[in-house]
Amino acid sequence: MTEPFRDPANPLDVRVDDLIGRMTTREKIGQLNQRLLGWHAWSRRDGTAVTTEALDEEIAHSGGLGALYGLLRADAWSGRDWSTGADPAASAEVAALVQRRVVAGSRLGIPALFVEEAPHGHQALGAQLFPTNLGAAAAWRPELIERAAAHTARELRARGAHLALVSGLDLLRDPRWGRGEECYGEDPLLASLYTRAVVRGMRREPGIGVVLKHFAGQGAGIGGRNGSPAPIGPRELTELHLPAARAGIDEGALGVMAAYNDIDGVPCCANGDLLTRVLRDRWGFEGLVMGDMFAVDRLMRAAPTPAAAAAVALRAGVDLSMCDVSYAALHEALDEGLVTEPLIDRACRRVLSVKLRLGLLDPPAPAPSFPPPEPVADLVAGGMVLLRNHGDLLPLSREARVAVIGPNAADLASLLGDYVPPLPDGTGTTVLDGVRGLLGDGVRYEPGCLLTMPIEGGLARAAAAAAGSDVAVLVLGSTGRRDYRDDFQTNGAARLGDARPAATTGEGFDAAEVELPAAQRDLVDAVTAGGTPVVAVIVSGRPHGIGRVAAACDAVLYAWYPGPTGGRAVAEILFGTREPVGRLPVSLPRSSAVLPVAYNERLETTERYIDADAAADFPFGAGIGYTRWAIGPASASTDRVGADDLAGVSVVATVHNAGTRGGTHVVQLYARALVAGRLPRRAVLVGFARVALAAGQRREVRVDIEPDAVPGLGIGAHDTGMLELWFASRAGEPADPLRLRLDPAAGELRS
Amino acid sequence: MTEPFRDPANPLDVRVDDLIGRMTTREKIGQLNQRLLGWHAWSRRDGTAVTTEALDEEIAHSGGLGALYGLLRADAWSGRDWSTGADPAASAEVAALVQRRVVAGSRLGIPALFVEEAPHGHQALGAQLFPTNLGAAAAWRPELIERAAAHTARELRARGAHLALVSGLDLLRDPRWGRGEECYGEDPLLASLYTRAVVRGMRREPGIGVVLKHFAGQGAGIGGRNGSPAPIGPRELTELHLPAARAGIDEGALGVMAAYNDIDGVPCCANGDLLTRVLRDRWGFEGLVMGDMFAVDRLMRAAPTPAAAAAVALRAGVDLSMCDVSYAALHEALDEGLVTEPLIDRACRRVLSVKLRLGLLDPPAPAPSFPPPEPVADLVAGGMVLLRNHGDLLPLSREARVAVIGPNAADLASLLGDYVPPLPDGTGTTVLDGVRGLLGDGVRYEPGCLLTMPIEGGLARAAAAAAGSDVAVLVLGSTGRRDYRDDFQTNGAARLGDARPAATTGEGFDAAEVELPAAQRDLVDAVTAGGTPVVAVIVSGRPHGIGRVAAACDAVLYAWYPGPTGGRAVAEILFGTREPVGRLPVSLPRSSAVLPVAYNERLETTERYIDADAAADFPFGAGIGYTRWAIGPASASTDRVGADDLAGVSVVATVHNAGTRGGTHVVQLYARALVAGRLPRRAVLVGFARVALAAGQRREVRVDIEPDAVPGLGIGAHDTGMLELWFASRAGEPADPLRLRLDPAAGELRS
Repeated sequence: MTEPFRDPANPLDVRVDDLIGRMTTREKIGQLNQRLLGWHAWSRRDGTAVTTEALDEEIAHSGGLGALYGLLRADAWSGRDWSTGADPAASAEVAALVQRRVVAGSRLGIPALFVEEAPHGHQALGAQLFPTNLGAAAAWRPELIERAAAHTARELRARGAHLALVSGLDLLRDPRWGRGEECYGEDPLLASLYTRAVVRGMRREPGIGVVLKHFAGQGAGIGGRNGSPAPIGPRELTELHLPAARAGIDEGALGVMAAYNDIDGVPCCANGDLLTRVLRDRWGFEGLVMGDMFAVDRLMRAAPTPAAAAAVALRAGVDLSMCDVSYAALHEALDEGLVTEPLIDRACRRVLSVKLRLGLLDPPAPAPSFPPPEPVADLVAGGMVLLRNHGDLLPLSREARVAVIGPNAADLASLLGDYVPPLPDGTGTTVLDGVRGLLGDGVRYEPGCLLTMPIEGGLARAAAAAAGSDVAVLVLGSTGRRDYRDDFQTNGAARLGDARPAATTGEGFDAAEVELPAAQRDLVDAVTAGGTPVVAVIVSGRPHGIGRVAAACDAVLYAWYPGPTGGRAVAEILFGTREPVGRLPVSLPRSSAVLPVAYNERLETTERYIDADAAADFPFGAGIGYTRWAIGPASASTDRVGADDLAGVSVVATVHNAGTRGGTHVVQLYARALVAGRLPRRAVLVGFARVALAAGQRREVRVDIEPDAVPGLGIGAHDTGMLELWFASRAGEPADPLRLRLDPAAGELRS
Repeated sequence: MTEPFRDPANPLDVRVDDLIGRMTTREKIGQLNQRLLGWHAWSRRDGTAVTTEALDEEIAHSGGLGALYGLLRADAWSGRDWSTGADPAASAEVAALVQRRVVAGSRLGIPALFVEEAPHGHQALGAQLFPTNLGAAAAWRPELIERAAAHTARELRARGAHLALVSGLDLLRDPRWGRGEECYGEDPLLASLYTRAVVRGMRREPGIGVVLKHFAGQGAGIGGRNGSPAPIGPRELTELHLPAARAGIDEGALGVMAAYNDIDGVPCCANGDLLTRVLRDRWGFEGLVMGDMFAVDRLMRAAPTPAAAAAVALRAGVDLSMCDVSYAALHEALDEGLVTEPLIDRACRRVLSVKLRLGLLDPPAPAPSFPPPEPVADLVAGGMVLLRNHGDLLPLSREARVAVIGPNAADLASLLGDYVPPLPDGTGTTVLDGVRGLLGDGVRYEPGCLLTMPIEGGLARAAAAAAGSDVAVLVLGSTGRRDYRDDFQTNGAARLGDARPAATTGEGFDAAEVELPAAQRDLVDAVTAGGTPVVAVIVSGRPHGIGRVAAACDAVLYAWYPGPTGGRAVAEILFGTREPVGRLPVSLPRSSAVLPVAYNERLETTERYIDADAAADFPFGAGIGYTRWAIGPASASTDRVGADDLAGVSVVATVHNAGTRGGTHVVQLYARALVAGRLPRRAVLVGFARVALAAGQRREVRVDIEPDAVPGLGIGAHDTGMLELWFASRAGEPADPLRLRLDPAAGELRS
């Protein structure tokens, strides 16, 4: 007879209860651990995949296996490459092989969750890579990332994985942070819409669950230092850092990852307010909470023993740990009375529920085949932001003699960002490839310098190349390139030792200086000195201070990390095949000395320093295309609203393509809530609309306020006051706002 | 018959009740306002002081006068100088004249509180000026500031004033903030001890009350911008920003000033949690809460009307407003039902209680005579911090040929800081004066440059002066100099308009760049190029990034704003009459790109950027003298303590003057509280001891932990864990800590 937990016809609760009832304490604690790094679970022997002793030991230790992280991960840290890793064809077999071993080693035959990194594509050989989050957010088109996420989920399912680790919850509040590329920018609404889209996309694939990271407030870390303290208060947390998580959970995310940082002194992994009171009691979340890698062990900085650290985390609400030594000490914690069996059961129940919901204990369904690549040109190009176009230099003529110059001009790795596998040889399109693809191989190329260092004679050759051309395309920025010889911390973040790694962004690559390195600034000076028009293309995962570049160059295009086909998109934009339609998802600072600069900080009286303006250099929402726009005054469908009714408000205005060329604009709706006794944020994005119009055309644009806007505004259900609303083409534009009365008694909307 | 409120024999409550019972609503609201700026209340006509129509109008409007700010203030903003202001001899008469008018215009004969700025001496003509708070804190000798405060209180009383506005509660967490000089540094214990000392000193004088500012969290403002949002949480607030206020209140401060900033979205003047729940309910404070100048009006940014803004402030707990237009609208607030009469009474009762406690309604006592100056040489010199002394260049020989160079070398105003009156002609000692006083008039002098601008030929002349000397003393830094032609905001802060004011620090002078201006860096290069040994003296109210100066010069002395006699103290230190004994009360950053850097932030995993170390350049507590020190291991009087018993712990170690010269050291005791589930601060100063020893001498030093240390550590009464303790000569020194068990059950200390 089949045990009740195996019968898909039974309700989830019945199956979980039955299964838990059969398990020993040791087996339950085993389910709460994912200590083994997945690439240590298998190897190749004579071309055949085999499981390792390390896997057997871990299974034996835990009486099974809760989860396995990174089984298919391929990158410098795992050491897996095209000769040692699992390509798309081999992956499902590797997964099945390991899973059979896990099931065989589990008395009750419980499979492991296979957990994979998939922040912008699966970090495995042959996976399709998408722009990093920051570049995707710059497209202001969550629907495109939904399709990308659905594709990645299909890949994951075809390979036998179950849980995708996806960034998106962190807000990019400090440009010094190396992980800025993993954020959907500085704004909670944009992050919420994108997080929702990712979850929606991945949920199209049954059997794949999303774990959202990081929960919570990691973007508020002081100094832009990775995982640093976030001494913020509950309003700051709730208004800015929680909405994306709430949105993703409402959309059906199965897990969240508890972050490294503390919030006002309490590490997220020890934070019962966050993991239980907010997440479970208030939001009703029923999935699992996974600790970030070694994050529970970090509690040992204050806890006297591993058991004490584990107990704090379990009590707070961490269900599944990652790599921690301490979580295996839950046995001791139980013996010492630091935790109770029901607490173990609570966590185990959540892990098993996820396994059941993803079908791990159901009769196996045939895995789908590995999907063909998803078309991504709109997404890749859509996030590129034109910030300056002096004298309408762009779009360039194809007749022009073009020199492509700069350290990122011909470096494929620099287009990709962090958390990427090695690409197959011969794939990808650099900016140089893209321009040559349009203009032919006669296009001149000079690197000019390395990202952080000069090249002997590089400046002179670059200047000469520019001088001999009608226009120079200068490709600058950063790189997330990891080297297989780099040194790594135990959690895979780079270790900054004596040997300087190649990368300048990514996890472990926080930078004090937001300006481009001196070597690149010298290159800008050299290339612009001769008078040839120069287009700067910034390829980077970080919001740089580009004031000097913008002052020296005629045009500036911010390309972020667009992925392997990014070079073609750049070329298409430069030569007018496509209009640049991206808008900044994060403010570009003027320098590291003028931080923070997010557009949605609260109102200030002091707007400048004695030696600098306090505003951003290029604000959130900025970006131009190849035509010009005018937005008329806003009007709303009501003149009084209750905070709970906000989602029902529609705001309209007439938008006019006032230029001589068709184009697309992102019309942004901002709000400010005036509630007595509260200090309002300068502005809060509450919605936006993309408008495509022919030259001279007008159209009425309507924005329906999204429910997610409400927490960002900081309005409570009982607040009275005023809501100011205005349309703009970027944050900080002067506006004459529309005013609605905030009135909790407003029962229904008036037309 | 005398009314009961006039009879000093009656208890305070009886007197207040009686008085309130006789007052009209208009008279009560009048007591809550101090709208008129004091220097507008009187003028001189034919050499005689007379009251103004503006005073009569204000009295008539309010049916009396609650308080009058700045009656005796003399500075560029008030426009009062030695020809138009009140000198010591005339002040009491001016005060009496105005007070007679107030009493005559009040139906019940209630006098006004005269409120004066006294952050480091009274901001009035002829007052004795002391070092600004930051320089005083660098002496690590609160007892000296107690004497200075007592002197100022005597001056105030002799002049007829009642309430002294005193800075001290703000922590200097961001070196960009222009008001850093008003802080006792970055540490809550140091700020608490100094605040306590100021209150104790001023309370020696009956009739003088202290209003502590600012309450609370102003030092946590983002970006170091004055009054900017402080999005911090309750632990950060409680552990860092509240202890000084608590200490001052425990010591008997009669008032606190509600700050401009918000805390996590709620402006302090609207913050009932802060002004009522913490201040009144938890701490039992019975004095008055005064709003900062126009701070209630700033609530109108979100409140629909002046009455609504006033209502929010009154309900939250602001008793006495300053200059606000809105607080006169409490009448309308009452009519509209936004506040109730008992709320008006609550605030009025607090204002009247202060008047009664200060004796304003008692039969007049004879005013004391204006006191002679207080000896301050130990305080002025004691705060100067030697940070580098390469090759024991200092102390200098009096036989040396010395050139004194630099923009602050001969500028008396630069020694003073913000909130100062004009000095009498011919007083004060610049550094040049000080050196010439020791060595004679043959000492060469060259300004070299202005603070922020070059002087034609200045670098060459400075270089020549250095080259022709045995040693160059290079006096750099900032200035708080205000010009009578400067433009001011309505609250007296400087307005940064097109015409650049002379000052580079002070209220309204936030600076993005913490390094010294380029003109001064060029001067350092010019003066050090020739090989003559150079001593840099930094005169500034701001913690600068001085890495380049320290690398180029042989010695660096940080003198802060030491007051008018500071030049003599510098000379005495340079030539060895005195040892430099100051220690940094704030970390010196390496650059604006590496912030924050306070020593007592929480532990971080990431300790560097790819392009910079994340630590301070010179940490909190650093400073050297003319000998060398060694500190032995610590031992304690107990091995287990409860959090509430911490104040009883004594920690001892042997200190050794390991050099060849007698000297004085500041031995610092740091702690770290290890409580499971909390992220500890790197270190928290819990006590310190000054030790004077002859060369070669050893002595056991004992530090008794102060009660104030407990909130700084973040330990609650029920916490268990471990307390690490270690002695050091500065924050960040490697240490092998002593460990005490934190045990709430530890009923008594074990020997």
